[in-house]
Amino acid sequence: MMRTYLDCAPCFMKQALEAARRATPNEALHQEVVRRTARELAVFDMTATPPSMAQKIHRIVRELTGNPDPYREVKQRTNRLAVDLLPAVRRRVREAEAPLEMAVRMAVAGNIIDFGLQRCFRDDDVEEVLERAADSPLYGSFEEFEADAVRASSILYLADNAGEIVFDRVLIDELGSRRVMVAVRGRPVLNDALREDAVAAGLTDVELVDNGSDAPGTILEDCSEELRERLASADMVIAKGQGNYETLSGAPRPVWFVLMAKCPVIARHIGCEPGSFVLQKR
Amino acid sequence: MMRTYLDCAPCFMKQALEAARRATPNEALHQEVVRRTARELAVFDMTATPPSMAQKIHRIVRELTGNPDPYREVKQRTNRLAVDLLPAVRRRVREAEAPLEMAVRMAVAGNIIDFGLQRCFRDDDVEEVLERAADSPLYGSFEEFEADAVRASSILYLADNAGEIVFDRVLIDELGSRRVMVAVRGRPVLNDALREDAVAAGLTDVELVDNGSDAPGTILEDCSEELRERLASADMVIAKGQGNYETLSGAPRPVWFVLMAKCPVIARHIGCEPGSFVLQKR
Repeated sequence: MMRTYLDCAPCFMKQALEAARRATPNEALHQEVVRRTARELAVFDMTATPPSMAQKIHRIVRELTGNPDPYREVKQRTNRLAVDLLPAVRRRVREAEAPLEMAVRMAVAGNIIDFGLQRCFRDDDVEEVLERAADSPLYGSFEEFEADAVRASSILYLADNAGEIVFDRVLIDELGSRRVMVAVRGRPVLNDALREDAVAAGLTDVELVDNGSDAPGTILEDCSEELRERLASADMVIAKGQGNYETLSGAPRPVWFVLMAKCPVIARHIGCEPGSFVLQKR
Repeated sequence: MMRTYLDCAPCFMKQALEAARRATPNEALHQEVVRRTARELAVFDMTATPPSMAQKIHRIVRELTGNPDPYREVKQRTNRLAVDLLPAVRRRVREAEAPLEMAVRMAVAGNIIDFGLQRCFRDDDVEEVLERAADSPLYGSFEEFEADAVRASSILYLADNAGEIVFDRVLIDELGSRRVMVAVRGRPVLNDALREDAVAAGLTDVELVDNGSDAPGTILEDCSEELRERLASADMVIAKGQGNYETLSGAPRPVWFVLMAKCPVIARHIGCEPGSFVLQKR
């Protein structure tokens, strides 16, 4: 579990403002959201994880603006964009010498197509991202990942964002979809994937579970009993994205984290350079 | 006068954290500064200018950390760096076809060497900045500026940052230092120039006045009576940098603003592209 750093404070304000603007054109409400977020930040328990603060922010946004899902359109748009890219992604995997490794890389590439807070991290063209993903070194051991995957008869895959989840599907297919269960968020928060995004991604042949939470991460105490049981009992757990890393990096069981370390605070926590493609068991 | 925009909120948090870290290595105090800043932000009057909020932030930093001038070393360092560059800057002005215009450009270049909040805007080498400054179009009318300067028998020059003030000196020399009065901040705030920085810049042949304020801008109500009188009575007023723009753009008299519009909010307010070299009378 990663605590919240003071460096996160500016990002929280940015995230609050961006979400407020997506939720409503009413500027008085934008201001109310920013003020309420500042009040929360003034008393926030910094030993809690950043997604715990983000959860508060997006609740404030939904409550004050009355918009139950400000990122709905963004999510639909990124799903469509990702589905359009699917043939190219599949081809890369099919033609790779090590298809599973390429599928991991493509799943990380999907993590870059993040229209949430970090969208400014890379302004590359999507094709460039795929190309870079195919070539970048992985921070972590693919061999160990593959060994764990071969051994596992049940895999719990914790999804991250809409759009990205389409790329996850390619990795899930490589892993063998019959033994994979995919977990999505329980309620709308940021651009995080919900059940409808999993369906839009074509993940109809896997077992789907929602985690019962509206945090942009996996805060175990906030998740459903079912999710916690699945997490404890699965042979292998794969967690996508920064939010899942921040909330599960100290989890009571080994978890494979698959993400791009976009934020310098997370990169420092992992011990890699910002921008690294991470495949790490903790 | 420019009001505070919600987009300024993340920058305020960043500025508070950076100043706290400069002021003390004590992390508990960093946290206290961030929390107090968030509390101020939650109730801040957004019709006030951004430097009014920054003034509060730097007061919080000085009060909580006990450090009366967290940017002292930075200011001394940037003064020295700028003095080292002085011969190169003077040469450019001397060899230019229009020396006064080149001196304006060099003063703007000085505005880029800002080790305060905006330091990340350009990571160019200083020589590159000078080169770019010599070539960039000016947003505004130099001819009108020159005409005003020729006519004026008294010029009030409102300085901005340490370091930068060394470059201002070159412009002040071109304007004719005997008729120029230079105003600096009354007390330490951010990396803004104080009387000692004007002296370090070699501005010993001009009349110097401090504005009596600890705001990183020129909040007239907060300035000394003397400063307000000088501002009212000078034939021409030249205001350097963003902080002076934000606080004086609606002043009760015409002011020439000389700055680089580093921040997108200010650029929008001026009506130029971010990164523009501005020479504008308002």
